[in-house]
Amino acid sequence: MKKSLGVKTYIFPQPVLIIGTYDTNGQPNAMNAAWGGIANDNEIMICLGNHKTTANLAITKACTISIGDADNVMACDYVGMTSGNNTPNKLVKAGWTTTKSAFVNAPIINELPLTLECSLIKVVDGLKYFFRIENVSADERILTNGKVDLTKFHPICFEPAGNGYYTLGSKVAQAFAAGRKLNND
Amino acid sequence: MKKSLGVKTYIFPQPVLIIGTYDTNGQPNAMNAAWGGIANDNEIMICLGNHKTTANLAITKACTISIGDADNVMACDYVGMTSGNNTPNKLVKAGWTTTKSAFVNAPIINELPLTLECSLIKVVDGLKYFFRIENVSADERILTNGKVDLTKFHPICFEPAGNGYYTLGSKVAQAFAAGRKLNND
Repeated sequence: MKKSLGVKTYIFPQPVLIIGTYDTNGQPNAMNAAWGGIANDNEIMICLGNHKTTANLAITKACTISIGDADNVMACDYVGMTSGNNTPNKLVKAGWTTTKSAFVNAPIINELPLTLECSLIKVVDGLKYFFRIENVSADERILTNGKVDLTKFHPICFEPAGNGYYTLGSKVAQAFAAGRKLNND
Repeated sequence: MKKSLGVKTYIFPQPVLIIGTYDTNGQPNAMNAAWGGIANDNEIMICLGNHKTTANLAITKACTISIGDADNVMACDYVGMTSGNNTPNKLVKAGWTTTKSAFVNAPIINELPLTLECSLIKVVDGLKYFFRIENVSADERILTNGKVDLTKFHPICFEPAGNGYYTLGSKVAQAFAAGRKLNND
């Protein structure tokens, strides 16, 4: 029996995207967003209200988007709860350090092992930000033979019913393979 | 040491979104998409190329978006590998049955326990589809006191480095709470 729950933003799971930007003084900032996804083979879309981050984006047209991981869950949550407008040194309080991206005018958070370096393409409806992925940087410690290895990298995700952060669990199937058993005529 | 991997669609994890539509004859179809996310408090964006689904959307302006789960991983993968243009009865082959949504002109897949019922708002750049979430339907078996319960509902996600489907693992923190420890001055 199906039950109607009304209008809910119920994608399970959602990513934990940490957006890094510089302000006009070169001060790095970061925020946490779950409302976003891949929007083309070299694009990402994130829905953002008014933040220090969006003020920075209006100037620099660039950001980094790092993937939240289990080692950094407390800091990821913290940068989502505190505004860079009120706490300019929030990255220091989060325990994070930064290095300028070689591809865009935005800070890579050194402690987060996987980062998309992005340039702003356009904003739709005032809050849907489309970014071009210019490069992905990964810490060598999460790579095996140059490829991201989920035994070494532990991304977290957000579930919107109970506001929990979860790691990934068991691999249950191989995509573009498991379905072949049903594709037999 | 950071290493550049080039341009990759590396959001970890990505959702497994099963899009249900009707064609002009009322034949239900479904496809699998990982490129999408929440785009506002009542909207979702999905990036779609040319499919039977997009031909259906051009006519009906409506779809359901169900969350892939562990019980249905093989069928979820199957509907992503097979076109409704070549296999009109692909839902039957997937082992799925449908009921028309009470909110939009689109089929709810009975076997998938959580479904967003959506109307098409607009298409940007020919492939970014924005949908308004009109309602969410959930199977009673995944609810506790009317709320989605992740001990009963086992959504899967997609990881783009190895093309694996994963369940969620451990809850590592509570969002909007874990970060308070760093927010102490």
